[in-house]
Amino acid sequence: MRKKAVGVLGGMGTAATADLFNQIVHLTPARNDQDHLHILINNDPEVPDRTEAILHGGPSPFPKLVAGSQLLQAMGAELVAIPCNTAHYYWADLQATLEIPLLHMIRETVAFIRTAMPEVARVGVLATSGTLAVNLYQDELLGADLLPVTPTSDQIERIMEAIYAKGGIKAGITDGRPRELLCEAGRMLMGHGAETLILGCTEIPLALQSGDLPVPLVSASEALARAIVRDAYGSPSEWDDP
Amino acid sequence: MRKKAVGVLGGMGTAATADLFNQIVHLTPARNDQDHLHILINNDPEVPDRTEAILHGGPSPFPKLVAGSQLLQAMGAELVAIPCNTAHYYWADLQATLEIPLLHMIRETVAFIRTAMPEVARVGVLATSGTLAVNLYQDELLGADLLPVTPTSDQIERIMEAIYAKGGIKAGITDGRPRELLCEAGRMLMGHGAETLILGCTEIPLALQSGDLPVPLVSASEALARAIVRDAYGSPSEWDDP
Repeated sequence: MRKKAVGVLGGMGTAATADLFNQIVHLTPARNDQDHLHILINNDPEVPDRTEAILHGGPSPFPKLVAGSQLLQAMGAELVAIPCNTAHYYWADLQATLEIPLLHMIRETVAFIRTAMPEVARVGVLATSGTLAVNLYQDELLGADLLPVTPTSDQIERIMEAIYAKGGIKAGITDGRPRELLCEAGRMLMGHGAETLILGCTEIPLALQSGDLPVPLVSASEALARAIVRDAYGSPSEWDDP
Repeated sequence: MRKKAVGVLGGMGTAATADLFNQIVHLTPARNDQDHLHILINNDPEVPDRTEAILHGGPSPFPKLVAGSQLLQAMGAELVAIPCNTAHYYWADLQATLEIPLLHMIRETVAFIRTAMPEVARVGVLATSGTLAVNLYQDELLGADLLPVTPTSDQIERIMEAIYAKGGIKAGITDGRPRELLCEAGRMLMGHGAETLILGCTEIPLALQSGDLPVPLVSASEALARAIVRDAYGSPSEWDDP
């Protein structure tokens, strides 16, 4: 069975990209070097901020997303993934520029909840203001007959502070204040009925982990990693004899 | 200050490559996405085993090392690093095929010990049979006026079992038996006078960490990550104002 070469367009941010790589490694059923996947990573830190572009007229990340994905395609990637939820605002336009499939992290995350948690009806979303403003998770959840529970403006400010502040996750701080802010926002979503919480920004699982809150946390990065392994490596039934 | 684009030829193994990426992230003085490095990773799991080639006439990894490094160069990498100690047997021949500098993990590791531990005279080496057979660390240590303390054949078997066995590090097992085996080999080197131990295979720091033995452990991966950040990002004095 030939495995497909995986392309990862990263840098949004870099720690989240390394985290995705770790997840892929842990999910790959490898017994030696050769069982692992061919993974091409283009970690480009200069993609303009997605939320800035969507909400505040900042420079568009689209040209960099196209160039970075096309470079991966030219290097031999047979599928591509982008570990940044907000960047999925550009998914359809970006897929149209590529000859290889572009995985859809948000769709994979919602599909995972549908399959793994059939009893869940109300799903909380911890995400950036950009991701929330353009309804990426809300549309996908409603399409799957799930009720999105989204943060109020106050809570969004807390999430953005956890991610972007000088002492935030993008600055390499994952303990203390960022975790507290995310827990506060999460508890508010639970107060509004959320039975599970999507960690809908790839920085969030760097600070908030299973056990920090009394509901299941669904990492979008992990859902993406699972989809990558599934599509690149073959179906689980083939794993016994790779 | 323009940062240099970093190329990483990985897959030897994949978990060690992800570990190097993590180390680079932690060593980069970044306050936001844009401060991070442009990192291109070509994680090719199909590079033939280096020790097999050196000791047992297995297929040579050299053609794959050349193709993989040249792909990184073509993608825009301005320096390249290979997180596999044994692969450094091919360093000079590989550098000759490239127009960009190829970092030398073994040289960086020994230079780190010279600078950070000026009082140390005897250095133990935990490495694969391939790395040890071709004297990669021994030559470099002696050239730096340090005395290599190398494992006996029995100890080498222990190290190889920890890395390659069905329940070993390359199969994803890092706790339990692999750690015990490495600790045993490490204690024997200490018994022969080693004042510090080089973790001279990039799989080893996945199982053996500071505190597991009562001497300082020097990870070759970490020395390589430090060299990457130094050469790509500029000198520490420039870090305050990137």
